[in-house]
Amino acid sequence: METIGFVGLGKLGLPMAENLAASGFPLVVYNRTAEKAAGLVGNGAELVDTPAKAALQGGVVLTVVSDDKALLAIADEDFCRALGTGVHVSMSTVSPDTSRTIAERHARYGGQLVTAPVFGRPAAAAARKLWICTSGPVEAKERVKPVFDVLSQGVFDFGDEPGAANVVKLAGNFMLTAAIEAMAEASAMGEKNGVPREALLNMFMQTIFNCPIYVNYGKAIIEADFEKVGFSNLLILKDMHLVQKTAADSRAPMPMVNLLVDRYLSLIANGRAHQDAVSLVLGAAEDAGLKW
Amino acid sequence: METIGFVGLGKLGLPMAENLAASGFPLVVYNRTAEKAAGLVGNGAELVDTPAKAALQGGVVLTVVSDDKALLAIADEDFCRALGTGVHVSMSTVSPDTSRTIAERHARYGGQLVTAPVFGRPAAAAARKLWICTSGPVEAKERVKPVFDVLSQGVFDFGDEPGAANVVKLAGNFMLTAAIEAMAEASAMGEKNGVPREALLNMFMQTIFNCPIYVNYGKAIIEADFEKVGFSNLLILKDMHLVQKTAADSRAPMPMVNLLVDRYLSLIANGRAHQDAVSLVLGAAEDAGLKW
Repeated sequence: METIGFVGLGKLGLPMAENLAASGFPLVVYNRTAEKAAGLVGNGAELVDTPAKAALQGGVVLTVVSDDKALLAIADEDFCRALGTGVHVSMSTVSPDTSRTIAERHARYGGQLVTAPVFGRPAAAAARKLWICTSGPVEAKERVKPVFDVLSQGVFDFGDEPGAANVVKLAGNFMLTAAIEAMAEASAMGEKNGVPREALLNMFMQTIFNCPIYVNYGKAIIEADFEKVGFSNLLILKDMHLVQKTAADSRAPMPMVNLLVDRYLSLIANGRAHQDAVSLVLGAAEDAGLKW
Repeated sequence: METIGFVGLGKLGLPMAENLAASGFPLVVYNRTAEKAAGLVGNGAELVDTPAKAALQGGVVLTVVSDDKALLAIADEDFCRALGTGVHVSMSTVSPDTSRTIAERHARYGGQLVTAPVFGRPAAAAARKLWICTSGPVEAKERVKPVFDVLSQGVFDFGDEPGAANVVKLAGNFMLTAAIEAMAEASAMGEKNGVPREALLNMFMQTIFNCPIYVNYGKAIIEADFEKVGFSNLLILKDMHLVQKTAADSRAPMPMVNLLVDRYLSLIANGRAHQDAVSLVLGAAEDAGLKW
C-alpha cells in the first residue's frame, strides 16, 4: 500500500492516523509535539521533524490541524515543493480563502489540493464513523478514495472549487452550534416552568429531533459535564469567527451566528476557554438564573 | 366504544376525527363552519351547533382549535357544566396559563383537563403518526389512552401540572423554527459561496441532522414552495408570541425567539401571512440578495 504522509496528531488526527496504520498504510508522521507520535512509531510509522519531510514527492499527505494560521504555516513553499505533483488532503476546519491560497501554492509545483474537512467528534474518528465533505480536482479525489474509505462512513462531494467543502463544513458547525443554543433556550424556559430539561430533551431526542446532533448534545446538556472536552470553546469560537468572515465576505447576513459568537466570548471571558463547546448552554441557563 | 365529543375540524382536527371515526368511536362533532363536518356526518357522526353540546355529561371531549382566545371561548361555563365530571382533552397549542385557567373551570364541576398538544403536520395526523405530550391528572390520562393510541405513534407525559405539556409543545415549536432559521442562514451563506442549498442540505439531511424536522423542512426549503401550507406564518407567529410570553413570565431570556418573531412579522408585513411557516427561510435569503 502507498505510504501516506500525516501532519497533525491532535484529538481528531491521532485516531485517524491510527486507523490508517491499522489498515496497513505505511505512515510518515509529523506533529509539533513529537511525543504524541510514540504509539504510531511503536507500530512502525516513521517520525519526521518538519512538515515538509512528511510531504513525499508525488505522494499523498494529509493535514489535520487546528486553524488557518497553522495550516498556512505548514503548507509553505518547502512543503509544496517537497510534495511536487502529489496530493495534499487538507482536513482541517479553515476558511475557503485559505484553501484557495494553498491550492495556488501547490499548483506552482504541479500539485493538487483536496479539501476534505470532517464531521465527527474524536470518538467518531476512532470508530471510522466520520463524515467527509470534499472539493477539488476529480482525479485527485479519486486517488485518495481508499484513504477516505478507511476513515469515514461516507463522503459528500461539492465539486472542484477548493473552498466549497470548507463552506459546507462551516455551515454544519454553525448549524450544530445553533442547535445547542436552541436546546439551551428551550431547556431554560422548561426548567423555569417546572419541566426538567432531561424530560423535555428526552422527548425530542426520541421523536422529531432523533438525529446525532440533538441526541449526542442533548445527552451532554442533561449531564452538564463540561470538563469532558471533545471540542473546546476556543476552537468552536474560531469556527464561528470563520463563519462570520465567510458570511461577511459574501454579503450574507447571519444574525444567529452573531449571537453564538457573543455566547462563546462570554464563556471564555469567564474562564471557560478550555471547556467543551456544549457549555454554550450555560449562556441561556445563567441568563435565566439557573445553575447547571 | 365510548362516544367522543370533538370540537375543531381544522387542518389537524379533521384527520384526527376521521381516524377516531374509522377506529369505531362514535363522534359528536362541533365546528364553527359546519360544512367541514360533512364527511364525518356522512359516516355516522352527530353534528351539534354549540361546543357545549359536544361536551357529554361525564364523557370525553377533545378540542383542537387555533389559539388561546378560541379555546377560552369554547371551554366556557356552559361547556364545563355540560361536561360535568368528564374529561376535556385539550390538544391545541396554547399558553400554560390558559390550560391552568381551563383546568380550574372544570374543577368547579368535578371535571378534569388533560393537556395534550401534538407534534406533526396534517399528513402525520392523517397517518396516525402524531406525537403527543401530556400533563394532567393520572386517572384522566389513563381513561383517554385508547384515544391517544388511535391518533399517535407515542405519548410523552410531563406530570400533573396542567400547563407542563404546553411548555413542552412551545419549546418544540421554538426548536423547529430555530432549525429552519439555521438551515436558512447556512443555505444563504452556501449559495453566496457557490454551494447550492440542495447539495448542502442534502448532506446534512443524510448525516448529522437525519431527523424528521431537518429532513422534512430541508426538502421544503429546497423546493421553496411556500403555497403548500401545512402551517401558516400567522399560526407560527402566534406560537412564537406564546414562547416569548411564557419565557418573559418565567424570567428566561430567549434571544433566538426574538429574532424569529421579527422574521415572521416581516413576512406578514410583506403579504405572506397565509404562506407556509417554512417561508421563514426567505428572511435570510432575501437579506443576502437571493431570490428563492
